[in-house]
Amino acid sequence: MINWNNLDTTISYQELSKVAPVKLAEVMSGENGAERVRKYSVPMAEGMVFNYASRPVDEAVLGALANLAKETQLAEKFEALYNGEVINTGEKRMVLHHMTRGQLGDAVVADGGDKRAFYTAQQEKIAAFANKVHNGEITNAAGEKFTTVVQIGIGGSDLGPRAMYLALENWAKVNNTFKMEAKFISNVDPDDAAGVLNTIDVAHSLFVLVSKSGTTLETLTNESFVKDALKNAGLDPSKHMVAVTSETSPLAKSADYLDAFFMDDYIGGRFSSTSAVGGAVLSLAFGPEVFAQFLDGAAAADKTAKNANILENPAMLDALIGVYERNVLGYESTAVLPYSQALSRFPAHLQQLDMESNGKSVNRFGASVDYVTGPIIFGEPGTNGQHSFYQLLHQGTNIVPLQFVGFRNNQMGKDVVIEGSTSQQKLCANVVAQIVAFACGKDNEDRNKYFEGGRPSSIIVGDQLNPKTMGALLSHFENKVMFQGFVWNINSFDQEGVQLGKVLAKKVLAHDTDGALKVYSDLLNI
Amino acid sequence: MINWNNLDTTISYQELSKVAPVKLAEVMSGENGAERVRKYSVPMAEGMVFNYASRPVDEAVLGALANLAKETQLAEKFEALYNGEVINTGEKRMVLHHMTRGQLGDAVVADGGDKRAFYTAQQEKIAAFANKVHNGEITNAAGEKFTTVVQIGIGGSDLGPRAMYLALENWAKVNNTFKMEAKFISNVDPDDAAGVLNTIDVAHSLFVLVSKSGTTLETLTNESFVKDALKNAGLDPSKHMVAVTSETSPLAKSADYLDAFFMDDYIGGRFSSTSAVGGAVLSLAFGPEVFAQFLDGAAAADKTAKNANILENPAMLDALIGVYERNVLGYESTAVLPYSQALSRFPAHLQQLDMESNGKSVNRFGASVDYVTGPIIFGEPGTNGQHSFYQLLHQGTNIVPLQFVGFRNNQMGKDVVIEGSTSQQKLCANVVAQIVAFACGKDNEDRNKYFEGGRPSSIIVGDQLNPKTMGALLSHFENKVMFQGFVWNINSFDQEGVQLGKVLAKKVLAHDTDGALKVYSDLLNI
Repeated sequence: MINWNNLDTTISYQELSKVAPVKLAEVMSGENGAERVRKYSVPMAEGMVFNYASRPVDEAVLGALANLAKETQLAEKFEALYNGEVINTGEKRMVLHHMTRGQLGDAVVADGGDKRAFYTAQQEKIAAFANKVHNGEITNAAGEKFTTVVQIGIGGSDLGPRAMYLALENWAKVNNTFKMEAKFISNVDPDDAAGVLNTIDVAHSLFVLVSKSGTTLETLTNESFVKDALKNAGLDPSKHMVAVTSETSPLAKSADYLDAFFMDDYIGGRFSSTSAVGGAVLSLAFGPEVFAQFLDGAAAADKTAKNANILENPAMLDALIGVYERNVLGYESTAVLPYSQALSRFPAHLQQLDMESNGKSVNRFGASVDYVTGPIIFGEPGTNGQHSFYQLLHQGTNIVPLQFVGFRNNQMGKDVVIEGSTSQQKLCANVVAQIVAFACGKDNEDRNKYFEGGRPSSIIVGDQLNPKTMGALLSHFENKVMFQGFVWNINSFDQEGVQLGKVLAKKVLAHDTDGALKVYSDLLNI
Repeated sequence: MINWNNLDTTISYQELSKVAPVKLAEVMSGENGAERVRKYSVPMAEGMVFNYASRPVDEAVLGALANLAKETQLAEKFEALYNGEVINTGEKRMVLHHMTRGQLGDAVVADGGDKRAFYTAQQEKIAAFANKVHNGEITNAAGEKFTTVVQIGIGGSDLGPRAMYLALENWAKVNNTFKMEAKFISNVDPDDAAGVLNTIDVAHSLFVLVSKSGTTLETLTNESFVKDALKNAGLDPSKHMVAVTSETSPLAKSADYLDAFFMDDYIGGRFSSTSAVGGAVLSLAFGPEVFAQFLDGAAAADKTAKNANILENPAMLDALIGVYERNVLGYESTAVLPYSQALSRFPAHLQQLDMESNGKSVNRFGASVDYVTGPIIFGEPGTNGQHSFYQLLHQGTNIVPLQFVGFRNNQMGKDVVIEGSTSQQKLCANVVAQIVAFACGKDNEDRNKYFEGGRPSSIIVGDQLNPKTMGALLSHFENKVMFQGFVWNINSFDQEGVQLGKVLAKKVLAHDTDGALKVYSDLLNI
């Protein structure tokens, strides 16, 4: 029996609030600090580890968090989710994105069939299509191979797939699995589509139109923009486009597309990178085998997330420490700082994943909550960020918890030795140095050169960023966000906050405005 | 006589704290709201306007802010700055970035010459060099024209120039001033350099090495990486590289470069886009005339920033409202949301500009301050953000002030009409709708569909993003950050917070570690 209760009504949260806070600068110093780094480390899927030594926890805090996990039934709620309960209470939908990469529990039957079989069938259909594009069975009208794939989508149909593409582009190039260059058109700003079209050869481009409902205005607008460009080049748009949509969407059976691949209402946009939304573009860019490895990595991390012991479940542990930092210690933001240029857009994806899921003020039953929920998420790759906003992170007046990601090896295997170390060593040395600098600080009589320390961080470490570790990394954060939503007793799977803007934008376009809306519209010459 | 006092010692700040807060949802509704939008608007340089109707101000708040501006002597402090006072107290340096684009006050003589003449001479030298590259007087060893320019730099030598390049790339293409494609290498991650080199033709590439000191480890490492690639291609690196550095740097007189262009210690990296740091790459990419227009736009906005009347000085007004939101209303973050795909990396630049300048806990004399200073800055272009993190902005438990930017016209002149409106109209309708949605909210019995409103924003509106408006926009934010630093009585022009990490990274690379640092180093296999 699962109980859905607000965080502030739980006994364990009251207990957690009373635990003496950890003095991070103190406990991370000397041999004690070394011991913490050895001890506070959890294996993750695909050989990675989640090291939380520099987060503000000790045995007392961890004990309270374990109680909180138990009382809020995190493992049971996850089980209910993957077994097909209607967890998305706002939209009255199941939440099945885990099933795109594996069967974690019972079979789930809906829409007249087994959902795992449905997702697998879509992946196989995509794989067959991609293979035909790669081997030249599917070509442009002139019988020439497609060389470029362009995803047209916005939000979850853009940020996740784009981040994954950038993460694996160079890896695929050096591992000889790079098939087609990918580009992305998302913004309704016409300069976005025009700018991308300016850099590609449309005659050899295949466009993937992604819209679950088939009604996303930005995406349909950009589709028209692209169709015009194809027609102007004397090409037949229907021979250059595929659709990723739901089976009930107007796009599903249209003759406007070479083929259509399906997702469904049980997969939210921000959780759709492992569905056909990511599958089509990534399989076309890197080959279906690479996409399959990516799914394997995510599936392996999902399995780890089933563990009810928080010390053996990095996603659950990360989630709980985050709640402690947010609700007890009062930190408002979290920075995601991957020390990997390939992860340059991963923070933007996590920004959506986290903020759209947990930026809520009502619980899953629609009642206001009396505590803070999802934090602000931002980030850029290191070492770049060190030369940018880290000043505030080190010496600003607010504390921002940090999530580092680092890899022992680079992707492309090219390096240079300067001053006795490789660039990869410098990269790793920097992330290690930052963790300790943030945690321990440094005294100085000159207060301008004084570092208070006590600034928490954790690090996820892997051998290399590749399809499997990328999948595991993605799953880690998806599951972290899910567990936090459970703790806060909110529905992490709807997004009613985006609706009002849509309604008002329609009014503006219909010139059905008054008051401030009218004067602003005049200011923009609409 | 200028007085440098902490914010909390001023009378006007005490007064400001006592003014009744504005009920934004209320005042922005109905005809009152329309009147606010008409009234709370300030002309900016280059035909733009700063509209602050949806910020939480009224006549009482504005009156108190005017008193604060007067008491903290913002206009006098700016005057002292551009006339060459040592405003950067930490490093005991003048702050002269405004002089790269114009003479605002007295002549400033230093390093044996007039500084305005020095900056102008560098711009002329760059212009002459760029023209020779464009007309084929300077070529590769085979006598072929360079087609690509690659900036090697990090932090301020990367984020600003990169954001400006992306902002003007498509504009230059449609206005026939596009000369060379630009790429950027910044991260010490070897995959960054290797990835960029993989996409260019090194034989026709010109590299711009940017390091003020000539000792930035990331940049020198990437220089070596690039030189290896050039040598491996049988090319002479010294025929493919120029340096942007200070006259006293080891790079200044080196035979390793085709030419060297100078900046100096009076220009901080994050304020260097209008110096040779931005000048070389932008002049090579778009031609010196375009860079000159960009400087003109910035100079025009600088002139506006001299005005002591806050209602006629958008940068000063924006700064003061920001301080009110930060220190009195307690908001911790600010989002920058340009409705222009070309400004995709402008938020990343502003993130450095603002957080590195004002993320400080000590005043300009090195004493701790008892109030909060610079906020966290993040952002992505709209409409993309609407499908991502706006959920939290609308319905999350914390309020985040927003800075919108919008343009009436796109850059490339291509558009499509869908459902009776162009993409550009949809883009503008969306930003207008968002402002009102955030400010006014919307009641709903279903609390999951309820919008509280009262979420502040302002918008900067221009006709089109082009070199002049880009320059004015950049200057607006530079001066805003400067004025906020004055109000907080901090030194916005040093960055001691980046030092500790550097020191510890060196220790790691020298294997001179113990405690936590050693165990983390082992974890990363360093």
